[in-house]
Amino acid sequence: MTRVLVPWADLADYGTLPDGLRIDVYDGVASPPADLSGVELYVLPYDRGSGPIELMRAMPALKAVQSLSAGVDKVVPLLPAGVELANGRGLHDASVAEHALALILAAQRDLPRWVDQQRSGSWEREHTRSLADSRVVLLGYGSIGRAIARFMTAGEATVVPVASTARPAEGVHGVSELPGLLPGADILVAVLPDTPSARGVIGAAELAALPDDALVVNVGRGSTVDTAALTAETGTGRLRAALDVVAPEPLPPDHPLWTTAGVLITPHVAGGSASFYPRAKRLIVEQLRRFAAGEPLLNVVS
Amino acid sequence: MTRVLVPWADLADYGTLPDGLRIDVYDGVASPPADLSGVELYVLPYDRGSGPIELMRAMPALKAVQSLSAGVDKVVPLLPAGVELANGRGLHDASVAEHALALILAAQRDLPRWVDQQRSGSWEREHTRSLADSRVVLLGYGSIGRAIARFMTAGEATVVPVASTARPAEGVHGVSELPGLLPGADILVAVLPDTPSARGVIGAAELAALPDDALVVNVGRGSTVDTAALTAETGTGRLRAALDVVAPEPLPPDHPLWTTAGVLITPHVAGGSASFYPRAKRLIVEQLRRFAAGEPLLNVVS
Repeated sequence: MTRVLVPWADLADYGTLPDGLRIDVYDGVASPPADLSGVELYVLPYDRGSGPIELMRAMPALKAVQSLSAGVDKVVPLLPAGVELANGRGLHDASVAEHALALILAAQRDLPRWVDQQRSGSWEREHTRSLADSRVVLLGYGSIGRAIARFMTAGEATVVPVASTARPAEGVHGVSELPGLLPGADILVAVLPDTPSARGVIGAAELAALPDDALVVNVGRGSTVDTAALTAETGTGRLRAALDVVAPEPLPPDHPLWTTAGVLITPHVAGGSASFYPRAKRLIVEQLRRFAAGEPLLNVVS
Repeated sequence: MTRVLVPWADLADYGTLPDGLRIDVYDGVASPPADLSGVELYVLPYDRGSGPIELMRAMPALKAVQSLSAGVDKVVPLLPAGVELANGRGLHDASVAEHALALILAAQRDLPRWVDQQRSGSWEREHTRSLADSRVVLLGYGSIGRAIARFMTAGEATVVPVASTARPAEGVHGVSELPGLLPGADILVAVLPDTPSARGVIGAAELAALPDDALVVNVGRGSTVDTAALTAETGTGRLRAALDVVAPEPLPPDHPLWTTAGVLITPHVAGGSASFYPRAKRLIVEQLRRFAAGEPLLNVVS
């Protein structure tokens, strides 16, 4: 009987499980099954560090690995030769997009101020910025970028999508056009992965090109934005920022960004919310069906 | 020459002003013009208290008053006989809808926690609730309700719209159906005006009908929700709340809601953001055109 190892025991609630599989559960926290020798498909527990990844070495029959992250840079170096790898593309889109919106709205509508006022029971009122009417340069226009764009459109903001290469038919600009686009941005949202070409794309020159009071949002990877340059531009009060990712992570406790007015920081939690789980479980059920039927897996990356 | 009194001097930036009007400016803060005897159309300054409203009495030639609020309950009692009143319906829709979303996302994605952690430079991470997949009962389905619904749809949440009377063709439930709808609500959003029929619509029984951990959001008027009942249900931790309006306002500094875990309060700021101004100014330009041309005004309420 074909053995598979999955991180959750309740997959049958998310679809019909195929016959002909022996399904064991390993959540990345409790001990793994003692005998892993027959495991052919391994669905990695999500966000549990390197231990579960190293476990691949104890699976001599392994044919395929399913990661539940979009980025698989930590899995690839440890992947045994000849083993197929599928990623978790799309599972976090809804979660990351809504966290991006949470950051944007918190910044535009002064939520940190109201949280502070709540502490002292103060009803002091003041008008705030809006999202509506804003011009939002969206750097990274894959599935998460498009989900963010849907929110922006619902909110009467104008989206200027930018991807690594221009796609004129879709109205998507190329990253080489950034210098001309940044001076018109009220809000810059970065949703880029940690690739060599994305690293440092938003440096001192790009930040300097933004107009006064612009908001820099990063929900991709911290390496996209030059932290020192952003610290300088927010430190003078010229720019604002709302960041779920920074370089380095964790941001050191004494880093000046933590205490800069107009800077809001969340600790890389955009992808980790309740909506991930049903999406991940539905994907696993479909992958199990495909694996049992000998059909190609979805999301194969190598 | 027909005299009109408006709150802003830059209206010409928002459209073509008609010939044949003498346009004076009164912003509700500086002193009004000494002679108001010839004013025929008065656009009330926004959110400046009762002084500007009482000024109507000094305008014997007054034919029409334009309020920039959706609710005109404070203007009506002081409106001179025979004077037409137009309201500011729609001017705040974008602002209120995005604030509603800011409150919902802040609550679902734990923003107050991250604001607290930022204070101590803590990178402690935890998974949160989502907006996606939530079932959102939207109590009040006018233009603001529809704007909120567009955000919910973009966020992969399910909207259950409820209005005072059912509109089956639109899928809108009547308020009498609430008892059957509340047990299925992850999030209840109230966007009702302060009318006799809306007062206390969400009382102890309705709150008790909500499932554990449901989020109660109010961006309409505080009188919709029974404050004592909500204080009790959030005090035990059974329900959560995100409130821009409460009864009474201001909420007294020692009120227990201020310090209840899972309760987020903003001081009635949903309507007051930057996006209001261009919308208000474009409306005024159109009303001036209509007034000068002898055409009926928009948004006439009495």
